[in-house]
Amino acid sequence: SSLLYKPASIRQLAVAASQITKSILFPSNQSTGRIRIMSSDAAVVSEAPVVAQPDDGDKSKQQQRPQQRQKLVLKVPKGMHDRPPVQMSVREDVLQKIVRVFKSHDAECLETPGAELKEVLTGKYGEDSKLIYDICDQGGELLSLRYDLTVPFARYVAMNKLQSMRRYQIGPVYRRDQPAMTRGRYREFYQCDFDIAGESEPMLADSECVLILTEVLSGLGFSNYTVRVNHRLLLDGIFQCCGVSEALFRPICSAVDKLDKCSWDEVAKEMSDKGLADEPIERIRQLVLTPRGSADLVDQLRENPALKGNAMVTQALDDMSRLFRYLGLLGCPDQVRFDLSLARGLDYYTGLIYEAVLEPTPDCNVTVGSVAGGGRYDKLVGMFTKKDIPCVGLSIGVERLFTILEQMHKAKEQKIRTTATQVYVCSAQKNLLEERLRLCGQLWCAGLPAAHSLRSNPKLLTQFQYCEDTGVPIALIIGESELRDNKVKLRCIASRKERLVDRDSCVDEVRAELASLAAAQQKTEQ
Amino acid sequence: SSLLYKPASIRQLAVAASQITKSILFPSNQSTGRIRIMSSDAAVVSEAPVVAQPDDGDKSKQQQRPQQRQKLVLKVPKGMHDRPPVQMSVREDVLQKIVRVFKSHDAECLETPGAELKEVLTGKYGEDSKLIYDICDQGGELLSLRYDLTVPFARYVAMNKLQSMRRYQIGPVYRRDQPAMTRGRYREFYQCDFDIAGESEPMLADSECVLILTEVLSGLGFSNYTVRVNHRLLLDGIFQCCGVSEALFRPICSAVDKLDKCSWDEVAKEMSDKGLADEPIERIRQLVLTPRGSADLVDQLRENPALKGNAMVTQALDDMSRLFRYLGLLGCPDQVRFDLSLARGLDYYTGLIYEAVLEPTPDCNVTVGSVAGGGRYDKLVGMFTKKDIPCVGLSIGVERLFTILEQMHKAKEQKIRTTATQVYVCSAQKNLLEERLRLCGQLWCAGLPAAHSLRSNPKLLTQFQYCEDTGVPIALIIGESELRDNKVKLRCIASRKERLVDRDSCVDEVRAELASLAAAQQKTEQ
Repeated sequence: SSLLYKPASIRQLAVAASQITKSILFPSNQSTGRIRIMSSDAAVVSEAPVVAQPDDGDKSKQQQRPQQRQKLVLKVPKGMHDRPPVQMSVREDVLQKIVRVFKSHDAECLETPGAELKEVLTGKYGEDSKLIYDICDQGGELLSLRYDLTVPFARYVAMNKLQSMRRYQIGPVYRRDQPAMTRGRYREFYQCDFDIAGESEPMLADSECVLILTEVLSGLGFSNYTVRVNHRLLLDGIFQCCGVSEALFRPICSAVDKLDKCSWDEVAKEMSDKGLADEPIERIRQLVLTPRGSADLVDQLRENPALKGNAMVTQALDDMSRLFRYLGLLGCPDQVRFDLSLARGLDYYTGLIYEAVLEPTPDCNVTVGSVAGGGRYDKLVGMFTKKDIPCVGLSIGVERLFTILEQMHKAKEQKIRTTATQVYVCSAQKNLLEERLRLCGQLWCAGLPAAHSLRSNPKLLTQFQYCEDTGVPIALIIGESELRDNKVKLRCIASRKERLVDRDSCVDEVRAELASLAAAQQKTEQ
Repeated sequence: SSLLYKPASIRQLAVAASQITKSILFPSNQSTGRIRIMSSDAAVVSEAPVVAQPDDGDKSKQQQRPQQRQKLVLKVPKGMHDRPPVQMSVREDVLQKIVRVFKSHDAECLETPGAELKEVLTGKYGEDSKLIYDICDQGGELLSLRYDLTVPFARYVAMNKLQSMRRYQIGPVYRRDQPAMTRGRYREFYQCDFDIAGESEPMLADSECVLILTEVLSGLGFSNYTVRVNHRLLLDGIFQCCGVSEALFRPICSAVDKLDKCSWDEVAKEMSDKGLADEPIERIRQLVLTPRGSADLVDQLRENPALKGNAMVTQALDDMSRLFRYLGLLGCPDQVRFDLSLARGLDYYTGLIYEAVLEPTPDCNVTVGSVAGGGRYDKLVGMFTKKDIPCVGLSIGVERLFTILEQMHKAKEQKIRTTATQVYVCSAQKNLLEERLRLCGQLWCAGLPAAHSLRSNPKLLTQFQYCEDTGVPIALIIGESELRDNKVKLRCIASRKERLVDRDSCVDEVRAELASLAAAQQKTEQ
């Protein structure tokens, strides 16, 4: 991939950090020999240089500034973060791959505002509602920042009276949660959602969503994942069969959801605290901790006397059986596991639920837990309009994936390019700034990503170093002799090979060199 | 471009709106024959179908629902809007082209949070500060939504003690302004910024920014633009020469800024209201309304006796002269005009300022005014840290460009594709759902964007109609006879030509057909 490169080094003491490099290229204490005058009290035309006006308006500004400077605390809001260029490069690559998968499944792109009317979000998230950011009442409507992309999607479907829509949406959402930045948990974080609204044959849309989860993870280069699947109706049926009253279905489900982070004893205590007796808790344990399976587990549960005859269980098992059949027809990788302990946190799921987890590998031994998930929510649109529109969808936990991929690049000592520059225009002697401009103009006009130093007389070594540090593959060098002969020197940064080319054909020569470099790299990667 | 297509029509009565089409494809009143049971009070296993339990928990829900449904007003916040798929297609295309230009100028990508500490934004926007959205104090820091991308960039440069950075950033900003949605003025709108921070030879970075403005507009297919340029120091010098006191420089500058919307008389009245006497107003008029020019105007102003000897004027004219020389060397299109009436609204500019306007054409006769602009701001980073870092940059008014381009597509009767699907898998007879799944799986596995109906037995005509309405170029049709012979029928939607291909090579056949369609389209466009 052109995103990554292994930097070669001119000097043994390579300047690694690009910040340091840049300060070499553009020293800040270099005098430009210019005077910038920002203000003056003089109302008449002054012949004297302004430097010689010690009593002008600048003085009062100088007195104000230090105060203003001292009091400012330079930081970003708690739980939020700037995304610097290296992160943005990884992110662009990841999002591009995800969008490609979404688009290959007939999805349209939608964007909803960053804020919603407060009442749109009210009553959708259960106890998590306290984590919603509200916007100040500055006159007008009461607004909140969006908490996820699913509720706005349901609002959009209802508001536009859509019977069906297949859309993806990518954007930041906001939660006043306790942040855990190193594990990719932020107060502002990206969600990356794909959803299908509208009637469909049972499990047809659902199985496509599970397939998409696997395509996204495979597309990002992960093979070490498992997709856990379960069914909310099955959980409800189990709870019913175990003697849980309906009012406790959601609270008990939410306790089961903690099984991937907590021990059974902790979960059992929560159930007990929520008012469930010991016997139903024990019956739930026996069922929920059934080992994972696939189609075979469906058959096994059909035969389980504790569940036999329960309408919800029957319905859910029919769905699960259809799911596995469809996944087989679709050629979905055999990494989908029926797991009765999967519950999913959100209240609004009504059918199939799923979650992808990465298993640790030598490449990547971080334990991040769930990296994607979703399910069916047939009643959410109905909370906005008279008509229920069944929906199923998935959300990719991109922040966690960004974190994992950055760590993998770091482990492989792969440097990540943050610019797309292909040619750096260098001057070999002094006073060639205008010639550099002319050549850059020619390259930009041809659509070639090019750059040059913003100093008038940079050192040649400094210019080469910039190429190495930022991964620019080619330098075009202008010197007095090249100018005289209407030539330019083309240098391949990695091999340090140089050759003279005609000035008039230098764009074509650069293109040819880039093509041969790309071909060589592709050969290495194979 | 593959974004656009002219829809052919099977039926004379083409169903134009995709919403209508979709309700044909996926009728909402179609019974799926399934019962979804969401809740039940029964704590014991019930053998009876839940439909026959009129007293279960569903009833109370049915009573609650209508109330909840009635009170909800379905809308988005004032001045904000959903961006439906057609808009997103146009936007994706526009942003891709803009980013390509930014990247070809060595820019890195940065993203800052959607919210900043309130104090970061305080004192940066003059009287516009009242338009900032504040976030509720829910315990913790006082936050505001970002108002532009420039102040967060300056904060980032200061916070990371950068000596230089060349970055682009694209994202929404928030202003509690009076919205004018039809003219592309929103309370949440996208900005698309490119900035260069750090020391550079005089006017080197500045002239590159002006070139980038022209490259962006040309790249989007506009030729009817003018880039107006002026210099804040020149305006200040003019004000000084005309007898304006320094305290009035910014207020009078802000009055001049209104010249593109108001008559001179209105602007003069504002100056008078701000305390300026008639004589200086008249002297300003004579200078500011000087006809536009380019390098010639620089020479003319150098000779102007009213300005002669003013240090700020001299400095600014040196800059302007250098600008025109550099633009010439860069091969910048001759659409840059030195315009003394350009002032730009924002307080923080300190040097060169510029603004691109589209002139009306037969293709596009909307008057939108400025579509891009920017300038030098050498003192903004210094408001956050002890050290000034000179900066220059530009912002593309993408919302206005989206509006214009949508109108142009509409005028040309070009339908905009909102999906990327290349193949639609059709069944010609009943009960072929599972065969469709198998074929879709094969196409997705090969990375081909594919789709099929989510109904079990869709009509063939309905399936073709979906292809026409959404621009899918190829249908693969499965029927009993094709299945028997291990074949599949490949139909080109536009030409309606059909041929049988081997099932095993159908991916290659689709690829070949797509390539020949693309080649034919390219020929038509030339």
